[in-house]
Amino acid sequence: MRFTSETTSGGVSERLFTLGEISGVLWTPEAATGTRPLVVMGHGGGQHKKAPDIVTRARRFVAECAFAVVAVDVPGHGDRPMEEEYNRIATENQARVEAGEEPAPLIAGFQALVARQTVPEWRAVLDALQGLEHVGAGPVGYWGVSLGCGLGVPFVAAEPRVRAAVLGLGGGAPSAEAAARITVPVEFLLQWDDERVPRAAGLALFDAFASKEKTLHANPGEHGEVPAFELDSTLRFFARHLG
Amino acid sequence: MRFTSETTSGGVSERLFTLGEISGVLWTPEAATGTRPLVVMGHGGGQHKKAPDIVTRARRFVAECAFAVVAVDVPGHGDRPMEEEYNRIATENQARVEAGEEPAPLIAGFQALVARQTVPEWRAVLDALQGLEHVGAGPVGYWGVSLGCGLGVPFVAAEPRVRAAVLGLGGGAPSAEAAARITVPVEFLLQWDDERVPRAAGLALFDAFASKEKTLHANPGEHGEVPAFELDSTLRFFARHLG
Repeated sequence: MRFTSETTSGGVSERLFTLGEISGVLWTPEAATGTRPLVVMGHGGGQHKKAPDIVTRARRFVAECAFAVVAVDVPGHGDRPMEEEYNRIATENQARVEAGEEPAPLIAGFQALVARQTVPEWRAVLDALQGLEHVGAGPVGYWGVSLGCGLGVPFVAAEPRVRAAVLGLGGGAPSAEAAARITVPVEFLLQWDDERVPRAAGLALFDAFASKEKTLHANPGEHGEVPAFELDSTLRFFARHLG
Repeated sequence: MRFTSETTSGGVSERLFTLGEISGVLWTPEAATGTRPLVVMGHGGGQHKKAPDIVTRARRFVAECAFAVVAVDVPGHGDRPMEEEYNRIATENQARVEAGEEPAPLIAGFQALVARQTVPEWRAVLDALQGLEHVGAGPVGYWGVSLGCGLGVPFVAAEPRVRAAVLGLGGGAPSAEAAARITVPVEFLLQWDDERVPRAAGLALFDAFASKEKTLHANPGEHGEVPAFELDSTLRFFARHLG
């Protein structure tokens, strides 16, 4: 793990890093020492590790909960090179949607394919970060919606260090299969008028989690319109389970 | 409105009252003066104005938000006399369920009938309470689940003084019709494994609210198993909309 830059503002330190081919960013409280909870964040499709909705949440997790937060670029996103195979599949899927196929199952299948690469990448990042003195081997949380849910569900299912997860804006059979192996507390966000994820697919994914504690928060609006008050709820959820 | 007793504990004053045939209880901060938000609470079936889940919530609304809270006995419950007609219908419904009919539509129909009496009763209680110096004509909230939802939905739909409502554990066509006239913010509680209200009926009721801001909180468990953390959420919801 190689840190390439560090900036600090508002009491939050932000360090860019690379780990092999992976580019990421770590946020921690300024001048932090010692072990603390770590939240792994998965960004949305076409976005990157420093997308505004990631940065806004990450800074609040650090400033209000004194957590460490990490986000890494998904292959083909942010500072990472284009991925020929993923591009080819995305182009094929686009053509199939234009020919009349339902987009949701195609998206879910694509995310399951990408997850085969991102799950081991994120686990390697976790290994490296937990070796840092000001992160350490504390409890781990996961936050990710949309693509961050499609990649996050198999990650949370595979990674026993994750103790709680906020997921949402996702659905589909591959996710539901992995969700059935998740037993940690889950807060699941669903947009009632999601134009990308059919309501039934989102409800079925919530239903599939094996977690004894899981809570569905559904709100009116389209895919990108999660209300601001849900971030307050996310903070309390992580504070309850990681703090 | 005639107050018949007053006790105070933990900074919360509790006064029993009658208004005509209606028996109720008003909780306010000890030694309160001036106008404040008022939360009307509807109790569950077979329960009463001082059922434990009502008292627990009421005391927190008063202690943590300095609200006034009122709960009144539904006809045939608590300190009120038996209602021959309601008893007759309940007995008939019980026989129809035993003969194989679905209970949910029968319950919804019964609650709609009782609401024809409780909506004007609760509005009269509101009129009387708003004349008290330490309650006044501040913003009004409503909290009620199960029977308190079946009676609360038509109350909230009819009463423009209500600015925000926590409802849940209900469903059915009569509620959905009234819900379509509700436009204030709603937090709706649904138990994912509710043995009394079919999941689809609960989701359909949430769908029916005309409110621009409405949020569904669904949790695993049966009808009576709403998790404790939802009360924290209720407090924040009312603080946001009435405070």
